[in-house]
Amino acid sequence: MPLVVQKYGGSSVADASRIKNVAARIKRRADAGDRVVAVVSAMGDTTDELIALAREITDAPEARELDVLVSTGETQSSALMVMALHALGVDAISLSGAQAGMRTDNVHGKARILAIEPRRVREEIDRGRVVIVAGFQGLTETLDVATIGRGGSDTTAVAFAAALNALCEIYTDVDGVYTADPRVEPGARKLKDITYEEMLELASKGARVMAPRAVELGSVYSIPILVASSYNDEPGTLIHGGVDMEGFNRVRGIAHDVDVAKITIRGVPDRPGVAAEIFAPLADAHLSVDTIVQNASKEQLTDVTFTLAKNDLARARPLVERVAKAIGARDVVADEQMAKVSIVGTGIQSAPGYAARMFRTLSDAGINIEIISTSEIRITCIIPEARIADAVRALHAAFELEKAEASELA
Amino acid sequence: MPLVVQKYGGSSVADASRIKNVAARIKRRADAGDRVVAVVSAMGDTTDELIALAREITDAPEARELDVLVSTGETQSSALMVMALHALGVDAISLSGAQAGMRTDNVHGKARILAIEPRRVREEIDRGRVVIVAGFQGLTETLDVATIGRGGSDTTAVAFAAALNALCEIYTDVDGVYTADPRVEPGARKLKDITYEEMLELASKGARVMAPRAVELGSVYSIPILVASSYNDEPGTLIHGGVDMEGFNRVRGIAHDVDVAKITIRGVPDRPGVAAEIFAPLADAHLSVDTIVQNASKEQLTDVTFTLAKNDLARARPLVERVAKAIGARDVVADEQMAKVSIVGTGIQSAPGYAARMFRTLSDAGINIEIISTSEIRITCIIPEARIADAVRALHAAFELEKAEASELA
Repeated sequence: MPLVVQKYGGSSVADASRIKNVAARIKRRADAGDRVVAVVSAMGDTTDELIALAREITDAPEARELDVLVSTGETQSSALMVMALHALGVDAISLSGAQAGMRTDNVHGKARILAIEPRRVREEIDRGRVVIVAGFQGLTETLDVATIGRGGSDTTAVAFAAALNALCEIYTDVDGVYTADPRVEPGARKLKDITYEEMLELASKGARVMAPRAVELGSVYSIPILVASSYNDEPGTLIHGGVDMEGFNRVRGIAHDVDVAKITIRGVPDRPGVAAEIFAPLADAHLSVDTIVQNASKEQLTDVTFTLAKNDLARARPLVERVAKAIGARDVVADEQMAKVSIVGTGIQSAPGYAARMFRTLSDAGINIEIISTSEIRITCIIPEARIADAVRALHAAFELEKAEASELA
Repeated sequence: MPLVVQKYGGSSVADASRIKNVAARIKRRADAGDRVVAVVSAMGDTTDELIALAREITDAPEARELDVLVSTGETQSSALMVMALHALGVDAISLSGAQAGMRTDNVHGKARILAIEPRRVREEIDRGRVVIVAGFQGLTETLDVATIGRGGSDTTAVAFAAALNALCEIYTDVDGVYTADPRVEPGARKLKDITYEEMLELASKGARVMAPRAVELGSVYSIPILVASSYNDEPGTLIHGGVDMEGFNRVRGIAHDVDVAKITIRGVPDRPGVAAEIFAPLADAHLSVDTIVQNASKEQLTDVTFTLAKNDLARARPLVERVAKAIGARDVVADEQMAKVSIVGTGIQSAPGYAARMFRTLSDAGINIEIISTSEIRITCIIPEARIADAVRALHAAFELEKAEASELA
């Protein structure tokens, strides 16, 4: 009998009626002859509510104790899901991360998975039971509870699928991966399949379909992951490693993100070590920098521009101004009304024509490109935030993403 | 350094500010040089809320899963308490029942404690830490979570005090054991000390100070238990095994309970086995019967009267009527407007005069006694509910309970 590891996120188990709905889905799957392990998240906003409760007690809750506290959210939904299954006559049992064999290091709040020891899970499956695993939580060597960070239930599901050599299905409130955000481009089309790398680029902030870390884990262990809706039976998107001839050398989708601020240090003396001097204070302050570009030098002076999350701008700016003065730069300018738009597809960066067509499309729409950056499978432009919707729609049309791909016509 | 195991109940940790208040109390105790292990209950109504959530899912949640669910309440408050201690600069750590070494059988919902293996607790104490233990929960042989039933945090505290050879202190919203319920008899006096047995009689339903099972456990292991308020520093009541000369042969307090209904089966044929026939169906229906009296037989017919909780009357009555018909009894009468009043004191049952003075007092107050029953340390009368406050006050005065005892004048 096929073994499948499913994951149901917080919105899919947000209240009693949604839990019953998921239980009915699991029952249908079990009745069809599959053996099911389901990883569940905490109900709705439970995690945030528990964190708020901790902050009523102290501004700086210790990470170990925060893990003890927030991990109860997943424990609760696992027990409730089993009750709902029992009510439908399905034999089932809930297992905590510890019981299910999730072993982690002791970096509380963002622990790494060290191993999955699924002995108990296998025993319960062999007894004919559906196993509901509390996601997001594991056990350290000192037998303490540790959580593996946001998106931890996705990662839990992929890790168990790898350990159990099972199928992996992520059920969420989004029914798959689209060629663009459907709220921005109504003509966006759901992709039948996508590679891990393309998924990582498309799902960064803008898409919110699945935790990037879980995708990476799937990539490392070559676990195909189906992303689909927990509310309907529409086919989802399969994330996998293979790139077929149709998939290669094509734009698969448009990613965008409006949480972008820009800082430019102008008139930076162009000497070795200056970049390190600029970015070290930001790293020390745990401020995450995204795209960095340094313009070609002229007369021993250069401009250094980088982007970061809008929320981080207020903390970053004084640090950057101090270092700008220290290195003798001319001045610092910032703009928080920026956005990022990318075309994503395996092979497009090295293939000719894609970049040019992207720049032409934006230019034809009268959209000014402030920064360009590229990765293996992505070409990104930083543009004014006010034009982001126009940019997504123009690119979606220019690369004909509304049309079904050859592989989907079969 | 003295080691103390404290327990803080649900109302003492009902919200962030009360948790901080308890943390400050623990800190003062630790600063005074004591090593502290504190057992905490779930916050306020958390347990009831979780049970209500389970009932939204199913009418009959399985006991194992209900244990997984409700045990998260204590886990949450243990972590929050440690955060509050950390905020005060106190080194502390939370331990689940499993981590603390609470081993139970697998009778979920009302598990028995099999052993306390406090290795980890000792290690943390030896590191100079305050240890906060999540009450009410333990680990079974199959490594599943089991809860030990209502009042489980009291029992947890007494069990750890026994295992660690420590003092035991139960902090609650009542500041000790009184000679009567102060809401009924304003002149009720807090007792400085009391025996386990007297406590069990006084604390039954009416007093709500501490779980009877915890008192019994204290008695078995001879653990003196201090009951005091978590809101002030007033001296509480010490529950212990020793009976001194003052304590012996004295009425220590008046217990009462208005949750009493009465059923009488009249004209029961007086033959062997008839009592078993009457009570077997009630036991099968898990209906708990309290006092039972059978009047002396006359003409081969007898009357059997027993009391039970008011809530159980509706379920019990048809069962009793069926059995009455089967055994050929005349009829069944019931009255749910009953109450129970007791005088409690080691030795009073066997000493002359106490029973007579009790009956005289009630008679002088015009209160009709419907049933009398006695135990080693208690004489109980069942009376009409409408007169219960009068009865408590009259007995409190008759046995001069407003006066301090000799041992308290020292």
